[in-house]
Amino acid sequence: MLKDLVQECRSCRRFYEDHAIDEATLKELVDLARLAASGNNKQPVKYILSWQPEKNALIFPHLGWAGYLKDWPGPGEGERPSAYVVLLGDTEISSSFGVDHGIAAQNMMLGARERGLAGCMLGSVTRDKLREALQVPDRYEILLVLALGKPKEDVVIDPVGPDGDIKYWRDSDGVHHVPKRSLAEIIVG
Amino acid sequence: MLKDLVQECRSCRRFYEDHAIDEATLKELVDLARLAASGNNKQPVKYILSWQPEKNALIFPHLGWAGYLKDWPGPGEGERPSAYVVLLGDTEISSSFGVDHGIAAQNMMLGARERGLAGCMLGSVTRDKLREALQVPDRYEILLVLALGKPKEDVVIDPVGPDGDIKYWRDSDGVHHVPKRSLAEIIVG
Repeated sequence: MLKDLVQECRSCRRFYEDHAIDEATLKELVDLARLAASGNNKQPVKYILSWQPEKNALIFPHLGWAGYLKDWPGPGEGERPSAYVVLLGDTEISSSFGVDHGIAAQNMMLGARERGLAGCMLGSVTRDKLREALQVPDRYEILLVLALGKPKEDVVIDPVGPDGDIKYWRDSDGVHHVPKRSLAEIIVG
Repeated sequence: MLKDLVQECRSCRRFYEDHAIDEATLKELVDLARLAASGNNKQPVKYILSWQPEKNALIFPHLGWAGYLKDWPGPGEGERPSAYVVLLGDTEISSSFGVDHGIAAQNMMLGARERGLAGCMLGSVTRDKLREALQVPDRYEILLVLALGKPKEDVVIDPVGPDGDIKYWRDSDGVHHVPKRSLAEIIVG
């Protein structure tokens, strides 16, 4: 059932870094993105793949991790993603990308989960530095980075409490808690 | 396999309008959206559901359908969607919605497909008219409309030809063709 996959498909930020992900797996994920709907079917989203430790090391320093975990600068050595997909907008095809990269990234997240992997869509990216590190041509806008790996953290969904706070947090066992609004709160008509 | 679901999950624009979709089904779909990732976990996307013929009739006139099919103004009576989910951005929660609505809509599209339904994410919406018709409060931005129904058209994916044309088209049998770029074209590094 899709519901199970969606429920298990949590954003993950700590990984077994020594669990390699190969190029073929990343291509399978991008194929899921390729088959997704695209505004006016323009398909302006392009992809850079990274599964090699040296290339991963070029990408990692330019990513911002968990904004609400003030004391945690991001995954340490050994717990970093073992692969990335960088989503680019090809400005020679379109000047605006709508939600194409969200649709594409979600297909890849679900595909990763189906393969026992997990990921995190990162929008907090030092774009100019990443562009330089990967020598991304000017024609491409850097939209999102999808970090991938074998998950090394437990993530649970909680209801949003009476105070309305939606900030995720980690308990003393290192379990990551994500408060989600109720159906009653989000259906407004 | 997710791959099969993704492959079958095509944008659909003609439906068996007499196939009713009930409120419970729409709530199941919104629950899939609810459980999706959201930027900074803010969850600013809210939803209006419509499954009643009278409410559907208020929504339909304000939707733009298939931009590339110049001679086709959209589905005729009897082939219109039997339900809608209107995705709103709650400006009291956030002033920007990133790709949250794309992620949410994709979960709902996949969930619809799993239930034998199909849909179309419509960004071409006469927003002021739709706001008036549904009396959408000013605090909400209208982001997307997801049209849903039991599919009454066949959709096939073709490779993009040598001329690079990505415009979808309908053949003489009414089959809807969608040219998709190859993996080789979209993986650029």
